[in-house]
Formats: sequence, structure tokens, C-alpha cells
Amino acid sequence: MKEGKGKRLFINEVATRDGFQMESRFIPTDDKIALVDRLGTLGYAKIEVTSFTSAKAIPALRDGEEVMQRIVRQPGVVYTALVPNLRGAERALESRIGEFNVVMSVSETHNLSNLRMTREQSFAQLAEVIALARQAGVPVNVSLSCVFGCPMEGEVPLAGVLEWIDRFAALQVQGVTLCDTTGMAFPTQVQALCEAVMARHPGLQWTAHFHNTRGMGLANVLAAVEAGIERLDMSLGGIGGCPYAPGATGNVATEDVVHMLQCMGYDTGMDLNGLIDAASELEALVQHDLPSQVPRAGHRLTRHAPPADFNDIAARAHARRAKELNP
Amino acid sequence: MKEGKGKRLFINEVATRDGFQMESRFIPTDDKIALVDRLGTLGYAKIEVTSFTSAKAIPALRDGEEVMQRIVRQPGVVYTALVPNLRGAERALESRIGEFNVVMSVSETHNLSNLRMTREQSFAQLAEVIALARQAGVPVNVSLSCVFGCPMEGEVPLAGVLEWIDRFAALQVQGVTLCDTTGMAFPTQVQALCEAVMARHPGLQWTAHFHNTRGMGLANVLAAVEAGIERLDMSLGGIGGCPYAPGATGNVATEDVVHMLQCMGYDTGMDLNGLIDAASELEALVQHDLPSQVPRAGHRLTRHAPPADFNDIAARAHARRAKELNP
Repeated sequence: MKEGKGKRLFINEVATRDGFQMESRFIPTDDKIALVDRLGTLGYAKIEVTSFTSAKAIPALRDGEEVMQRIVRQPGVVYTALVPNLRGAERALESRIGEFNVVMSVSETHNLSNLRMTREQSFAQLAEVIALARQAGVPVNVSLSCVFGCPMEGEVPLAGVLEWIDRFAALQVQGVTLCDTTGMAFPTQVQALCEAVMARHPGLQWTAHFHNTRGMGLANVLAAVEAGIERLDMSLGGIGGCPYAPGATGNVATEDVVHMLQCMGYDTGMDLNGLIDAASELEALVQHDLPSQVPRAGHRLTRHAPPADFNDIAARAHARRAKELNP
Repeated sequence: MKEGKGKRLFINEVATRDGFQMESRFIPTDDKIALVDRLGTLGYAKIEVTSFTSAKAIPALRDGEEVMQRIVRQPGVVYTALVPNLRGAERALESRIGEFNVVMSVSETHNLSNLRMTREQSFAQLAEVIALARQAGVPVNVSLSCVFGCPMEGEVPLAGVLEWIDRFAALQVQGVTLCDTTGMAFPTQVQALCEAVMARHPGLQWTAHFHNTRGMGLANVLAAVEAGIERLDMSLGGIGGCPYAPGATGNVATEDVVHMLQCMGYDTGMDLNGLIDAASELEALVQHDLPSQVPRAGHRLTRHAPPADFNDIAARAHARRAKELNP
């Protein structure tokens, strides 16, 4: 385990997109905007604000344009959104988007199940979106789902993952996110894959995205960081689920990951107390308990009061001790 | 992150002691015995069966003698129990205990709050217990609470931790467990402390015991294992709480830790499917959801079925693709 030694890491928030799209309750537009505005002041490198998917496909995010238009943008923070196709790209550009996040899966079965297209169809569609982004001078990040395994196909061969990365790199995208879409990644696998892709495309901006579905989320974050990954997706409160594992938790929780990284001496640039307060606001919005743990337990050095009768306990113990020493 | 490469690790189960003592429902004696008997076949190195504390102090474990007497002991498994004092030691010896687990805290405030004695009083009492165990030829393990921090005092100085270890080593105990009693440990701290104590007392049998209170439990397990720790305490289902952080999770969950270690290539000797089945039995006994995640999500390679209309989706996508290629 490497000491952080002040190494700078860059934190991306996905709760308002990856999280809210899974919530049963529609989060009111004003509340979404207020949350993004609050998050914007907490030190994030990037916030995935919304998705320009069709309102029919993801009704929870049907207010993408309005949210994107009305948020207060902080200097230094990239406000990104998911852009699935040309229609979405046009909406995104009208909304003054800071980056396009395009998504496809390296698993054919997952891509068909989730996006209703073959991977080739997704790639062709995203290539058009990427061309439009280049024309508009907007950077593009590709989020590749299932690179650590597919819940339907099982193991995903490394060669295939590398091939899709090569094809997107050839389109001159700025960054690639390695997504553990359903929490199948484990630490040594994470380190090996991250090292392999970074060595192959050192010029790309690499991000890792983990789910805590099987409890390994924070260990996987450390494995990615040890491999040299500097950018991490995470979700406030740990919201955002995984449809293939009912009851399992979703994204790694921002406040839990930031707490750990700060304890280890990494410079995340984040305001942890601000995150804990924001998680409390988020809990009120989604109206259910959050999976994250640091808001409940506090920072590791949060002091708890001794029992109410501590002074009596101590006095009795010391009196017994005195008697033992001088019987 | 080190590959496991078949390295043997030894797993200790604490659910029936550390877990059950926190449950509001009294677990019937027959059920306790049945669970220990089931766990005995799953590959554990050690099972902490019960506690020989007074029935008044921990009513949940008032049936310690009966449980210890009636369990079926598997060869190769150490059946241990918590032994707080001479009265408990006598009960434990009558119950044919395989090891004494004695406990004190390296934090004065925590020891007073939890055990109502100063650390010196605890040490004096445990020294008597250890002497009795030596006479009886029973090995002793010392579980030291709060070695990674105290919820009331904050940081615990390393010098103090080492001094208590030295004093127990001088009494010729067989092993020491480094307990992260309230989930304050973080990975680089774990590695540093484990390396320091193992270098100082290479002849002691070292165990690490983590709580997942702030989500770092599995990362801490890896840090300990990287430092050379081969023995780990964990709790089926992740039961067993922490009174100083209400709502926070307790011990790291056996099935989640074993799943991760197996994915990474360690030899835990454990039957993971058997653990998942046992967790389901445990959930019925404690009558509440368990914090562990692998029983819900399954092994990382558990295959999930594609959507019911997958064949239609695929057929439509392929038809569109054919049309695109030959318009």
C-alpha cells in the first residue's frame, strides 16, 4: 500500500446522473440545480450533471437542458453529461456542456441489453457524436462498461477491451473511463488492467469507476491509484445502483472514498465536511438511507463521549487499584 | 497490490461471539450449536464460539458452557472463547476450550468504559488467567482493542501499543490480535503497524481484526496481508457492531473477505458457497438483514440472465445493422 504523500487525485461526481437515474422518486429540477451548485464548491474536478438521453428512456433526467442551463459553473470544474447520440449531442451543445461523456459496453450482451444496439452500432453512433464534439471544440470522454467483467457473459477478454480502446483512441477522444459496471472487479485485476491500458495509451486521460456491489469498491480504488490512475468516478452517498444485483449497493460513495484517500495522505482537493453535509441534503432528496458510511460514523478521528457514568467508573477503578497497591 | 499466488491465509470466525453478543434477540442454544457445527466444516482455522463473561454482563452468551460442551469439534479447527477473568477461565477449562482469548484495550478511556478497570487492573487480572492457562496447557491469544485508534481518545501512540505487546509477550502468550475495534484503521496505517509489531515479535502468531465502520474494512485486510499477516478475524454476515458509531456496520463480513481473497488468488481454505448458505441461516437466526454483500450479489462470476426480450432486441439490432451495411 503506497502512502499518498500529497499526490493529487481528481474526483468526479456521478450522483446527479448515474445516481438520480436509478431513483424511483423524480428529484425536482430546482433541487437538482441546488445540489449541483453545492457540489461545485466542494473541490471536484468534474461533475456529471445529467444525461441527454430521451426523456422517454430516462424520465428521471428529462430536465437535462434546464439543469445544465441554470447551474452556477465554478471555474476549474468540468460540467459533463452523458450524450448517447446526435440528438442528445445537439441538446448538450445548446446547454453549454463542458464535456461529452459517451458510453458503450465492451460486452455484446450487455450493450444489447442496456443500449439495444450491437457494439458496432453503438460505435458508429458514438463516432458521429465524437465528430460533432470535435467540430464544436468540446472534449469527449468514453465510458466503457463491463471492462472488468459482464454480469451476463462473465469474464471479458483483455484483447477485446484493448481493441475498443484503440478504436476510440483513433477517434482522438480525450479520455477513457474504465467502468466496473456491476462490481465484478477485484484489486489485482484492476491493477493489471489499469497498468496495461495506461502503458498502451499514455496520452489518454484515464478514469476508474467502481461499484461496491461485492464490498471491494474501496480496495479497487486503491489498486487503481497504485497503478497510476489519478481520476476517479464516485457517487455522493453511494447512490446509483446495478440492475443485475438486486439489493446490492452501487457506486463507491464519494465521502467514503475521499475519507480513506485523505487518511492515506492523498490530496483529493475535496472538502470532506462539505461532502458529509451534502450527503445529508441528498438523503432528504432521495428519501431513503444512503449506503455510504462516513456520514453515519464520522471521520475516523471524530471523538465520541465516554459513557455518562465514566467519572464514577474511573473513580471506583482507581480506588480499587489504590487498595490493591496498599492493602 | 500483491497477487495471492496460492499463499495460505487462516480465517477466524467471530460471529458467534462478537456478533451474537450485540444481537437484541437471544439466539437459542440449539441454534448456536447448529451454526458452530456448520461453520466447523467450512475451512476455518479458528472459531470464537462464545464468551465466559458473567451472564449478567452479557446475557446473550449466558449459555457458553453448554454451547462449548455440545458442539462437534472438527479436527484442525481451534474452538476458542473470550475469557475475561479467573472465574471465566475455570468455566472455560471445564468446557474443554481450545484456546483462551483474553481482551483488553490499549486505550485507558476505552478500557475503563468497556471493562470498568484501568489497563493495569486488566493486565493484572489477565496475567492470572494466562498463568492458569499455561498450567492447563491451553494456548492464549491476546486481543488488543483500539490499537488503530480510540473513539474517545483519538490517535493511540505506537509506543504505548508496543509496550502492551511487550508485556504480554513476556508472559509467553502464543498470539496477539490487532483489533480495529471501531473501524478507525486505514490501509497505510495498518501496513505500518503490522510491519512494526511483526518485526519486533516475529515469534508471536499475529492476527488482524477489522471493522467496516467507515467502508475501509476490506482495504485494511489487504494492507495487513501485504504486511505479512496470515490470520484474520471476520464475522459471518458482517454482524457484530460498534457501540460508538450507531448505524455503522461492524466486523468485516467473512463471505465478502473470503470472496475477495479468493478472487486475488489467496488460499483461504474456505468453502465460499458454504459460507453463503450459512449466512442465509444466520440471517434467519438474527431476524434482520445482514450487512454482507456477496450473499446478495453472488460471486463475481455469477451469471445473470439477459432481459426476457433479449432475443427480440438482438434480432432487431442485427436487422438494422444488416440494413445499414446494405442499404
